[in-house]
Amino acid sequence: MDIAILLFDRMTALDAIGPYEVLGRVPGATIAYVSPEPGTKRTDQGLGLVADTSLDDAAHPDIVVIPGGPGETSVTTDERVLAWLRTAHETTTWTTSVCTGSLVLGAAGLLDGKRATSHWLALEQLRKYGAEPTLERVVIEGKIITAAGVSAGIDMGLTLAARLAGDEVAQTIQLGIEYDPQPPFDAGSPTKAPQFSVDFLRDRSRFVLAGDSSG
Amino acid sequence: MDIAILLFDRMTALDAIGPYEVLGRVPGATIAYVSPEPGTKRTDQGLGLVADTSLDDAAHPDIVVIPGGPGETSVTTDERVLAWLRTAHETTTWTTSVCTGSLVLGAAGLLDGKRATSHWLALEQLRKYGAEPTLERVVIEGKIITAAGVSAGIDMGLTLAARLAGDEVAQTIQLGIEYDPQPPFDAGSPTKAPQFSVDFLRDRSRFVLAGDSSG
Repeated sequence: MDIAILLFDRMTALDAIGPYEVLGRVPGATIAYVSPEPGTKRTDQGLGLVADTSLDDAAHPDIVVIPGGPGETSVTTDERVLAWLRTAHETTTWTTSVCTGSLVLGAAGLLDGKRATSHWLALEQLRKYGAEPTLERVVIEGKIITAAGVSAGIDMGLTLAARLAGDEVAQTIQLGIEYDPQPPFDAGSPTKAPQFSVDFLRDRSRFVLAGDSSG
Repeated sequence: MDIAILLFDRMTALDAIGPYEVLGRVPGATIAYVSPEPGTKRTDQGLGLVADTSLDDAAHPDIVVIPGGPGETSVTTDERVLAWLRTAHETTTWTTSVCTGSLVLGAAGLLDGKRATSHWLALEQLRKYGAEPTLERVVIEGKIITAAGVSAGIDMGLTLAARLAGDEVAQTIQLGIEYDPQPPFDAGSPTKAPQFSVDFLRDRSRFVLAGDSSG
């Protein structure tokens, strides 16, 4: 089972590392870290992640994972990535995204007419690709799975692991990564967080999220 | 606020990326990715993470984060790391670990007589460093915080963010990373997971965890 995870500059690390940590533990899984130009990519917090594999060398993965992050705005206009994604999607078993990675799926034309999710701040941007924004943590439409912001990739990974290898394997992976979440606050979604948190991030997003000029 | 995160070969990526994703969003935070020998480190799933900074160049961080993973067995005997950690700890505000990173804190002599946690499979190994194994997700003892396995670093990060910058900042970060966990199973701790998951991982750990010959 070949998994390709796209790496790019100014990506959000946890978007990729959540599903990576889960899916890499599925028996038989092999992960390729792919980019149009292999080499070190710098996350939005400056961490270097190494893309070892060119898109050409990962032309037919079984599973694709597209993370998001501020650098997504460059990826959605990178025809090399979009062409690879369209071709890969023809033969994948699952095509997935985390956070604003769904905008890349959208830009490749894969979400037209489909329900999809994204980071809550970017949800409305899905409309420009013909998708139906859905404020759920993990959205499954046929063989496309989109996950909400950043940390949602862990839940997406476990959901997918169960489909790939069964509930017992997924439960064992969950225990292996000791995923028994105990967040100190209940502030992880815009429907639960304090209003000041929602306002602060929405205001800042005007400068961070391209195309979100509506604020 | 200078944060130093130790990177090493055969580390578990999410151990580091959980607290990284949270703490890097605290206003004023700067993260250094440190190693005795800067360069690319390969995680236990083959991902290259780049350590840009030598230990000497991060001698006095405000916060230290030590992740775990199978490579921990080499780190606990690396005098360069242990000496750095002892010296850094003298002036840190917080010294933290995720997963088996606590064994590195233990090997440096920082946990003697203290309550601490680790990956549930490695918990008993804390005794050899004089620590009191504690099956809790986040354990705070003075300025030392240890977190349980892998994903627990996210909860640790948010707990620490609140102490560093207040509850409002921590809540806003939680919303930013959309940490509203919805795991598809309730299998994330040995007290909740199915017995077959506990048995499978405990059996395999005989080969993975050094010193855990008791199984």
